[in-house]
Amino acid sequence: MGEFELIRRHFQRSGVALPDQVALGIGDDCALLQPAPGHQLAVSCDMLVEGRHFFVGTNPASLGHKALAVNLSDLAAMGARPLGFTLALALPSANDAWLTAFAQGLFALADAHACPLVGGDTTRGPLNICITVLGELRPGQALRRGAAQPGDDLYVSGRTGEARLALELLLGTPWALEHAAPGTLPRLRERLERPVPRVALGRALAGLAHAALDVSDGLAGDLGHLLQASGVGAHIELPHLPVAPDLQALPPALQLDCLINGGDDYELLFTAAPADRTAIEAAAQASETPVHRIGQISAALGLRLLDAAGQPVALAPRGFDHFA
Amino acid sequence: MGEFELIRRHFQRSGVALPDQVALGIGDDCALLQPAPGHQLAVSCDMLVEGRHFFVGTNPASLGHKALAVNLSDLAAMGARPLGFTLALALPSANDAWLTAFAQGLFALADAHACPLVGGDTTRGPLNICITVLGELRPGQALRRGAAQPGDDLYVSGRTGEARLALELLLGTPWALEHAAPGTLPRLRERLERPVPRVALGRALAGLAHAALDVSDGLAGDLGHLLQASGVGAHIELPHLPVAPDLQALPPALQLDCLINGGDDYELLFTAAPADRTAIEAAAQASETPVHRIGQISAALGLRLLDAAGQPVALAPRGFDHFA
Repeated sequence: MGEFELIRRHFQRSGVALPDQVALGIGDDCALLQPAPGHQLAVSCDMLVEGRHFFVGTNPASLGHKALAVNLSDLAAMGARPLGFTLALALPSANDAWLTAFAQGLFALADAHACPLVGGDTTRGPLNICITVLGELRPGQALRRGAAQPGDDLYVSGRTGEARLALELLLGTPWALEHAAPGTLPRLRERLERPVPRVALGRALAGLAHAALDVSDGLAGDLGHLLQASGVGAHIELPHLPVAPDLQALPPALQLDCLINGGDDYELLFTAAPADRTAIEAAAQASETPVHRIGQISAALGLRLLDAAGQPVALAPRGFDHFA
Repeated sequence: MGEFELIRRHFQRSGVALPDQVALGIGDDCALLQPAPGHQLAVSCDMLVEGRHFFVGTNPASLGHKALAVNLSDLAAMGARPLGFTLALALPSANDAWLTAFAQGLFALADAHACPLVGGDTTRGPLNICITVLGELRPGQALRRGAAQPGDDLYVSGRTGEARLALELLLGTPWALEHAAPGTLPRLRERLERPVPRVALGRALAGLAHAALDVSDGLAGDLGHLLQASGVGAHIELPHLPVAPDLQALPPALQLDCLINGGDDYELLFTAAPADRTAIEAAAQASETPVHRIGQISAALGLRLLDAAGQPVALAPRGFDHFA
């Protein structure tokens, strides 16, 4: 199977209508998109490398889903509406069954967000998946990470930590094997391999919330980026952090580590004015996305973790660094 | 050096002003671009893999240049104005000298086209460079490959074949070593490793030429794609193909193979109405890009190569296929 045949067979979908924003799809030197009049364009790009971002032998349908999900999550964190994406794929060989499953996982998520594949590149090489996603939003409505204000409420969508526990179980880490309840891996693994990008919530928050980012490297580490960009500090009231049922059996220190240093959560972390609490609740309901108010932004720099008695808890925050 | 430090040191350029179309650059979940009112967006994406698209040990400055050049060439082939690009980079290690040179080659070309780096991703992994470029153009002005008309003139910019001869010399192919003049490699290698994207010509042709594409896989093979997309045929008058000085010593069959099956040329192949010959010449002059009229589009399908006497020449066209 040649390169053009591979693209035709797996990535050109003759029976599927392209959304209105696509003036020209796959097959020319460029794709052509027509953003809504006056809108800004949001662009993000993520590269997934085998053995680094996913295990050798990962289910290709999950991989197709996740490669797009992590990019849609960046659009969500900006408050943008998805327009389309490009896919560059390096493959050790043109494995038909692998490509069929990968495309299925990819397109199921793309269709759910009306975010079509508009172009890309395929080549032979060590397995590498690079997606660039494009979205649009009205000028002035973007959720920038530097826009947090002292006094803002601090929120997180969904819940964090399950992907981390799944990862530790798959790595065979002793504490995870010891404390995770039997039979939880399939459910936890779904959280690691099939993250749900919070696109609807992000769009509902655009122009309403102040700062936002998506939690990919751990809640504490990513919050640190938001605080630094905004020149502010924050506290988190730990009892307000939602704890997944599968994390409830963990010893407190390990549970907390999963919750705030987990990684691969793809939840939205955002701030908003206390006066907008009702509007934030309405945005959460309209987007059918659970949202928890977990703390507050302060003028004083630094991140403080507070226990149920309001006392500081020590825990070194750490995010994931690909070159550490 | 961590991932964030690597990005800060090599890819965030504090002293360089961003062009007006960039509302927000590197450092948030997404970059924000503001296309001109009413314009369409052109998007293209290319992935370069070490050992496949470039030799192990290729000069990193050349690599930075070429990775962006091949993407700008796609914009040129569409007639689009560059807006910005994202870069995803997988690196075996964070080699400071390599990154410094790579960034130098990349930014020199980016600056020449006012096409800033607006976002991306870096990770550890087998060397892989994936760039997605964004451009803008007026609706209806795109140079699509399916727009050739019977009777159109067929043009190519610059000249083809030198990159192919450079590649064969670097591979140590006997015919190349036998026939290439001594001392030509440095010059030829520049043509392989530092292609000049024909952005100014492409923009001058937008709304004037009919069909266009960029020649990356060999003139004959890429012309085949244009003909197929347009449902037409063509002939090329071989004596009208420009021959670089360094190719003139080659035996005729090898010379022809370089000219029409070369690959890595990144010249524009385009068609236009004979009534627009003066306008095409003006576009070539305005963009300071040599252009040659090499043949004509026909209603009869197929590609015919004609010699000086108008007699057909047999040569199997072939393009490069990454999965063949």
